[in-house]
Amino acid sequence: MNLPNDHIVKSYDEEQQRLVAEILRMGEMSVAQLEAALDVIERRDEKAALHLVANDEAIDQLEQQISHDVMRLALRGPMARDLREILAGLRIPADIERIGDYAANVAKRSIALVAVPPLPQIQGLRALGRLAAQQVRRAMDAYRDNDAEAALKLREDDARLDAQYTALFRELLTYMMEDPRNITPCTHLLFMAKNLERIGDHATNIAENVWFLVKGEQPLPPREKRDETSTVDHV
Amino acid sequence: MNLPNDHIVKSYDEEQQRLVAEILRMGEMSVAQLEAALDVIERRDEKAALHLVANDEAIDQLEQQISHDVMRLALRGPMARDLREILAGLRIPADIERIGDYAANVAKRSIALVAVPPLPQIQGLRALGRLAAQQVRRAMDAYRDNDAEAALKLREDDARLDAQYTALFRELLTYMMEDPRNITPCTHLLFMAKNLERIGDHATNIAENVWFLVKGEQPLPPREKRDETSTVDHV
Repeated sequence: MNLPNDHIVKSYDEEQQRLVAEILRMGEMSVAQLEAALDVIERRDEKAALHLVANDEAIDQLEQQISHDVMRLALRGPMARDLREILAGLRIPADIERIGDYAANVAKRSIALVAVPPLPQIQGLRALGRLAAQQVRRAMDAYRDNDAEAALKLREDDARLDAQYTALFRELLTYMMEDPRNITPCTHLLFMAKNLERIGDHATNIAENVWFLVKGEQPLPPREKRDETSTVDHV
Repeated sequence: MNLPNDHIVKSYDEEQQRLVAEILRMGEMSVAQLEAALDVIERRDEKAALHLVANDEAIDQLEQQISHDVMRLALRGPMARDLREILAGLRIPADIERIGDYAANVAKRSIALVAVPPLPQIQGLRALGRLAAQQVRRAMDAYRDNDAEAALKLREDDARLDAQYTALFRELLTYMMEDPRNITPCTHLLFMAKNLERIGDHATNIAENVWFLVKGEQPLPPREKRDETSTVDHV
């Protein structure tokens, strides 16, 4: 019964493998964008920042291409083909695409900071960004290795990123209160920090999709969302 | 040749119609959440805000359910079935789900504002929110009616929402500079305003998917992203 389908099944699997490789490539592109964005904040280089913003288009196009290819594959595959692989193949690129967007936003906002003296919180922002990049890299590794345990671990570690974000948020508010001239540049840093925190959330989404891919309907332990800044009413 | 497939084709179409109705229901839920969030800012009601945040779970679950059902439908449909309907059936609910998230975020941040005196910019924020709700409603109507022209029109009108957002953003920065005690509550309003501006972006995404659904590969006229606050370095 398997024999007549061998050719089709093999090419389905080959195509599936090609798509996984494309998704991993997309992940690398978004991490590279994020790291370049962190770099550009330090270098205060408007041209490089604009270049980064333009680069995001390539990630967006890859996501469109992958979602088309995943759907085409799904439609020609055996009816009983596990939905999980297809859904993960659509959702993970969507998360990577948004990580790329946030990285581009960080680069874009860094341009507004070129005109003002460097802020002391830049280092904290870059540390937050490095942690976010690390979370994305771990998520992509868990996807590559089908490693549900690694996915669970990095999902838990998102709490560290949230804590670091909350600390930076409070620090920025304090700095704004010290001198009104800090308000405008610090507002940009607040949004940049929020973008980095959201990148962490998307790494967590990828991790949850890896869990779903490997473990199926087996539920993940519940987890609280930990951006605590929405309930900060004092610093 | 069509006759033996009639039953299958009919039930495919029926299922497709049921899914469109579910997506429209999801859209109504997200608009209702947004309007309730705007209301709760005015009423300064912490309990109602928390209730709203919890409601968001229902939208998230509906999105999961719809994406599963769309995939199941895609897998049992004829091979040559147009991909556009399936892709739109996955992407539009994903946008609605995020609109619901942003509405819940607005409600959540309103809690932090209960403890402080009402800010004069609240009215501007609510006007921005009403415009965002209107954009979402127009996007869902365009989807319901397969109306590519209406979709194009509302996508253009996103510029109005962006302009209103930029004006509010500047107003909030000025208010923060006038008195350091305004900084913390205005930071919440900045994030709430950003959430509403993002809701407009998702209405635009839905409009673009409606265009794609109706017109296929026929390209949309290019459009600049207009959040200009990232290049505000003075007010």
